[in-house]
Amino acid sequence: RFHRKLQQFWGWILIAIIGVATGLTAFSVGLASTQLADLKYKLTVTTIHACDGCIAKPFFIILAFNVVFVLVSAFMVIFWEPAAGGSGIPQIKGYLNGIRVPNIVRAKTFLVKVVGVVLAISGGLIVGKAVTVAAPMVHSGAILAAGFIQGQPLSLGSVLGKRITKLNLGVWGRYRSDQFKRDFVAAGVAAGISASFGAPLGGLLFAIEDSASFWRQKLIWKICLCGSLSAFTLNFLLSGQRGHWGVLIQPGLIVFGNNNDFVNGGYAAWHFPFFIIVAVLGGVLGSMFVGMSVLLHKMRNRFIRTPVQKIMEVLLVVTITTVATYFMPIILKSCKDKKDLGPTASGIDYSHFTFYCPQGTYNQMATLFFASQESTMTDVLSQHRQFDTWELLSFLPFHLFLACITNGMSVPGGLFVPGLVGGEATIFDPSTTKAGAVMGRLLGEWISTIVSDVEPVVFAMLGAASVLAGIFRTPISLTAIIIEATHSERDTLALLTVTDIGLSLPVFFVVFISKWIGDFFDSGIYNSVYRVIRYPVLNWDPPSWSQWLEARHVMQDDVITMRTRESVKNIIRMLRDTTHNGFPVVRDDEKFVGIILRSQLTLLLTERAFVRDRDDVKNQKVVPLDKFREEYPRFPSIDDVTLSEEDIELSWMDLEPYINLHPYTVHSDTSFGRVFRLFRSMGLRHLCVVDEANHVVGIITRKDLAYLDRKQWDARRVRLNLSLESMQ
Amino acid sequence: RFHRKLQQFWGWILIAIIGVATGLTAFSVGLASTQLADLKYKLTVTTIHACDGCIAKPFFIILAFNVVFVLVSAFMVIFWEPAAGGSGIPQIKGYLNGIRVPNIVRAKTFLVKVVGVVLAISGGLIVGKAVTVAAPMVHSGAILAAGFIQGQPLSLGSVLGKRITKLNLGVWGRYRSDQFKRDFVAAGVAAGISASFGAPLGGLLFAIEDSASFWRQKLIWKICLCGSLSAFTLNFLLSGQRGHWGVLIQPGLIVFGNNNDFVNGGYAAWHFPFFIIVAVLGGVLGSMFVGMSVLLHKMRNRFIRTPVQKIMEVLLVVTITTVATYFMPIILKSCKDKKDLGPTASGIDYSHFTFYCPQGTYNQMATLFFASQESTMTDVLSQHRQFDTWELLSFLPFHLFLACITNGMSVPGGLFVPGLVGGEATIFDPSTTKAGAVMGRLLGEWISTIVSDVEPVVFAMLGAASVLAGIFRTPISLTAIIIEATHSERDTLALLTVTDIGLSLPVFFVVFISKWIGDFFDSGIYNSVYRVIRYPVLNWDPPSWSQWLEARHVMQDDVITMRTRESVKNIIRMLRDTTHNGFPVVRDDEKFVGIILRSQLTLLLTERAFVRDRDDVKNQKVVPLDKFREEYPRFPSIDDVTLSEEDIELSWMDLEPYINLHPYTVHSDTSFGRVFRLFRSMGLRHLCVVDEANHVVGIITRKDLAYLDRKQWDARRVRLNLSLESMQ
Repeated sequence: RFHRKLQQFWGWILIAIIGVATGLTAFSVGLASTQLADLKYKLTVTTIHACDGCIAKPFFIILAFNVVFVLVSAFMVIFWEPAAGGSGIPQIKGYLNGIRVPNIVRAKTFLVKVVGVVLAISGGLIVGKAVTVAAPMVHSGAILAAGFIQGQPLSLGSVLGKRITKLNLGVWGRYRSDQFKRDFVAAGVAAGISASFGAPLGGLLFAIEDSASFWRQKLIWKICLCGSLSAFTLNFLLSGQRGHWGVLIQPGLIVFGNNNDFVNGGYAAWHFPFFIIVAVLGGVLGSMFVGMSVLLHKMRNRFIRTPVQKIMEVLLVVTITTVATYFMPIILKSCKDKKDLGPTASGIDYSHFTFYCPQGTYNQMATLFFASQESTMTDVLSQHRQFDTWELLSFLPFHLFLACITNGMSVPGGLFVPGLVGGEATIFDPSTTKAGAVMGRLLGEWISTIVSDVEPVVFAMLGAASVLAGIFRTPISLTAIIIEATHSERDTLALLTVTDIGLSLPVFFVVFISKWIGDFFDSGIYNSVYRVIRYPVLNWDPPSWSQWLEARHVMQDDVITMRTRESVKNIIRMLRDTTHNGFPVVRDDEKFVGIILRSQLTLLLTERAFVRDRDDVKNQKVVPLDKFREEYPRFPSIDDVTLSEEDIELSWMDLEPYINLHPYTVHSDTSFGRVFRLFRSMGLRHLCVVDEANHVVGIITRKDLAYLDRKQWDARRVRLNLSLESMQ
Repeated sequence: RFHRKLQQFWGWILIAIIGVATGLTAFSVGLASTQLADLKYKLTVTTIHACDGCIAKPFFIILAFNVVFVLVSAFMVIFWEPAAGGSGIPQIKGYLNGIRVPNIVRAKTFLVKVVGVVLAISGGLIVGKAVTVAAPMVHSGAILAAGFIQGQPLSLGSVLGKRITKLNLGVWGRYRSDQFKRDFVAAGVAAGISASFGAPLGGLLFAIEDSASFWRQKLIWKICLCGSLSAFTLNFLLSGQRGHWGVLIQPGLIVFGNNNDFVNGGYAAWHFPFFIIVAVLGGVLGSMFVGMSVLLHKMRNRFIRTPVQKIMEVLLVVTITTVATYFMPIILKSCKDKKDLGPTASGIDYSHFTFYCPQGTYNQMATLFFASQESTMTDVLSQHRQFDTWELLSFLPFHLFLACITNGMSVPGGLFVPGLVGGEATIFDPSTTKAGAVMGRLLGEWISTIVSDVEPVVFAMLGAASVLAGIFRTPISLTAIIIEATHSERDTLALLTVTDIGLSLPVFFVVFISKWIGDFFDSGIYNSVYRVIRYPVLNWDPPSWSQWLEARHVMQDDVITMRTRESVKNIIRMLRDTTHNGFPVVRDDEKFVGIILRSQLTLLLTERAFVRDRDDVKNQKVVPLDKFREEYPRFPSIDDVTLSEEDIELSWMDLEPYINLHPYTVHSDTSFGRVFRLFRSMGLRHLCVVDEANHVVGIITRKDLAYLDRKQWDARRVRLNLSLESMQ
């Protein structure tokens, strides 16, 4: 009893550690990238000043900076750990859905991710120092969670790791299983979102709505605790770094805008028709982005395959981006008086960049193009900044073009996505969000000429939300995140930041319509990507056309079964000949008993848990449960099993003590909907199908449910002579 | 295909209607109770003035008012619809968990609830005009949801209802099932919370954390839409009533305090140790309240049984409460200068009641005792009000005493609970929340004498949160609701209300600790009540001691099965002899086929779907699926079946077309944990247990899982000679 209590308590402690560690990681990434960005900025300004407004020299300095940073980042991803590329969110989502994704929650991935993202942020141009952190943070949180739960955080060498594992097996042995690992990874995901936006509730809802597959009340609590602690840690450190130790003034890495700007204007009930326009446009724009991403992914898969090609692509994109963002503001120069600005933030002020404008003025286009993404966001969302329509209009297409070509490169980061998974935008992608904000602001400016009491900034915020919803189709967590990330600092020393929850209604309204519009065209970025890369992700509900299907239609009927007492020769043959992860075990009368896993069999073989005499099972070596836990998650492969010819030919293994007894089964006539729901809610990997005599007639795996082809089945249905009338 | 799309669309429309209707109900209840409370207040003030400060006359006027209102309310509950008594939340929670609760979502219950709650609010003294609305709103939302989904909202007479049903069966026939009804009721619950507090996210989380049992993404979206619309409707109407049509300034019925008060002070990281004190005290206080409630419930069950006793109890409590709240402020008179107050709200100002104090001053104790609950809450949470320690100290025990004796009476309302379910506090119970706020304020005042930068109001808010957490143990939804309900109106005409999300961290922190402390003593108010009233509510996880149990241990093995072709005589006998809701059907070789429901059998019997000749099944009358949907949810009982002796003796019924084919089954050796999780996640009502030959050997119902007695099983385990060592 006491042992169990201790284990439970240890679970909570682990959750707390994961939360704090995620907050620490977010702080480090933020700090490092800020330092590098400051360095680059100062160098540029100094050079422009020194050469008296020359263009070539500062440009090449920036170019060199960007190329070096981004190349190092790309090299790390391409040659060291490809799983660290991209945002990692689709992979983590897939992992939480129950798919095995190799290397996705390993320590090496974490290191490449963290270092690579800092370099990409500092070197990339379409990447803001903070906004991009969101997706990598989600991934980092997940990796940290998976690492800590195994009791060998960061895989501190296999020797040391094993020792720690053994030391702690008593306490956290219980957590060394796939199910618990998944729970902790879900908490890590929430912690990542929470740290990025200072949005613990948003993180929770993101995990609930979008990521996790099965729910228990305690999991919700754990997720919430983890998210709160990571937000707290980050807030504490950031505030301290700004000189206010102990006072919490900096809720997250990303701030969507200052909602003091909204208070005077806000919105009224009669603005809702205009909100619909924003929502529809955002939905269409988001959906276009999804389509373009899928297209780009397919092209990359075809043309950019070798490491050299990938490096060339990165080089090309960095150069184009640098050229475009540097020269556009010079060509489309728009100088404004600095005095017209409202109060500015402290520190280096990227957003009021003089950039070849006369002294005392700033280059508005440089603000849009060149400045860091999050300050641009804040500007577009600020009443104090006045934008001309032509400025916003000329920015939008360039920006979208750059965002599209940047997408899918082999660099880690929120924006960049590796060729492998490519074409997928990350949630909170700064470029799309910014495009949305600019679109909203444009609309708002236009509408405000018709209706006087409309606030363009509110429309800018709603525009950002609508484009995100058009891409990601997760209305509720988006609303929560946007609302939580819209902070207002009352003044620099204000002790609290205040969020405008009154805006949640229009945000929710707009986000929902955009999702609905987007659903006309496709099923959102993640599902589109999953279809292209063939991840067997299960949706929440079975497809509606599948009503007539039954278990026997979708199962694999060439099922390979084992006897409770099986010859080693057979076992090795089955393990070699198939890639199945689980095998149904039957008694000698063919009645189904349970399932045995590939990992169990390989470990039993390497441990030599077999006997010569079929009936001499009492002398078979007993492999205790702790041994399995200790090996988790890296079990020997069948190729690691080295047995003498004699052992293989003459030995028998009694599987009885290791069988996973009486798992869920379904009858072969069970409706597909029932099968699907059982599989989905229980997070199964394989489901045995039995007939009335309790003989195994088939096995259903995740792939059988995920890749249902409607056309094929509709055709088969005609062949089966099934008509609608015969069914209920 | 089109038909299905139309049905889906219709589902969303229904959700929208439920949301708007819940908002309208909340508005009506709020308006009516405000009018009645204003009337009472004016009468009291006028009488005090008229008789020049006499005490007896105004007291008796108030007493008469209260007695009449509360008595009418009690009469309605006791003699007309007992299910309308109390908050209704535990019953709705039980319903969502899968329990059949009679009359809980009927139209009559709704009417009694709405009228009764207005009267209770206006007549009761410990009830605020708005705070109490929360729980009834949850119940009302749930009833509205259940009504609309059946296509016969408010049961407009069975004749008219039937006609509407038939008209619409095509469109919403699909929704006439228990599962969909439960989904819609969950949305209604969220709408109720959302309208009460202006907290759509809080409503969603409440539904997720506390109420619903099984989750799908679409359900989350529906709940969120429903909650948003109900908050919007209420906000729109309330703002309009205040003269600002179209501008949304009044987010919910309940506002927890003005967070402008927090901004100057707020909190810092080093306040967290003090927060722990608040949390621990709140947890203990809340747990005490739970224990007291259970005790009171048991006493009521024993001594107050007849309607007359119940009426007498109501009379007594109303009188005591009136006496105490009227004379306490006179005895403990504490007159303060009105000038010291900050800006006051518009309208009648209950909280600055002169009440036997000199002109220009107000009676502080009257504020605490006599004023409406929500203005007291705001006062305790306001910096502008100064409270002396003795004032708060003398208030606390009196208030808790009154709250305790008031609890459990036969009146509908958030505070009052009927004798039947009695002893259960409602979430957001104003009296406990107020007690918590007062406790927090006391602590805060004391701590602020030690540490200078501490804000007593923040402690008051955290105190309220901690006591609530100590009672309800639902940390996340409580945090969300408290944060969303803590609005600040910047000025009367501010277009937006702003919420202080920075406070979510300490609130979450405190709430979590209080829950943890409370869990040492009991399992929270709902679970304690469920144990007393023996509701078979299933928790999220199986009890941890039940690891060794298997399906065969908990199943009922005296299972009654039917053949696919069964004699009418046997069917009627089985229906009469048992109260089972479902019967396993087996083939002639005893192999399990599926389940048939009691409701199906009774309908088939009344429809005379049987034949004389056992093999003449082709001539058996076919009862279409729509017929079952039409009858839902009021199927004929077995006593309604009137068949001639000959029909009964000689007829056969072919069940084949109506059997629920191949539902989930488990093997008799399946572990209890698996059985529990299957039952819980799939929301089952019965689960058939089969042996290896696929013969039915038992059936498991909800009660078998909910009422596991640890002691009995531990004893049996010893008998079974099972030792810990033999198990994993």
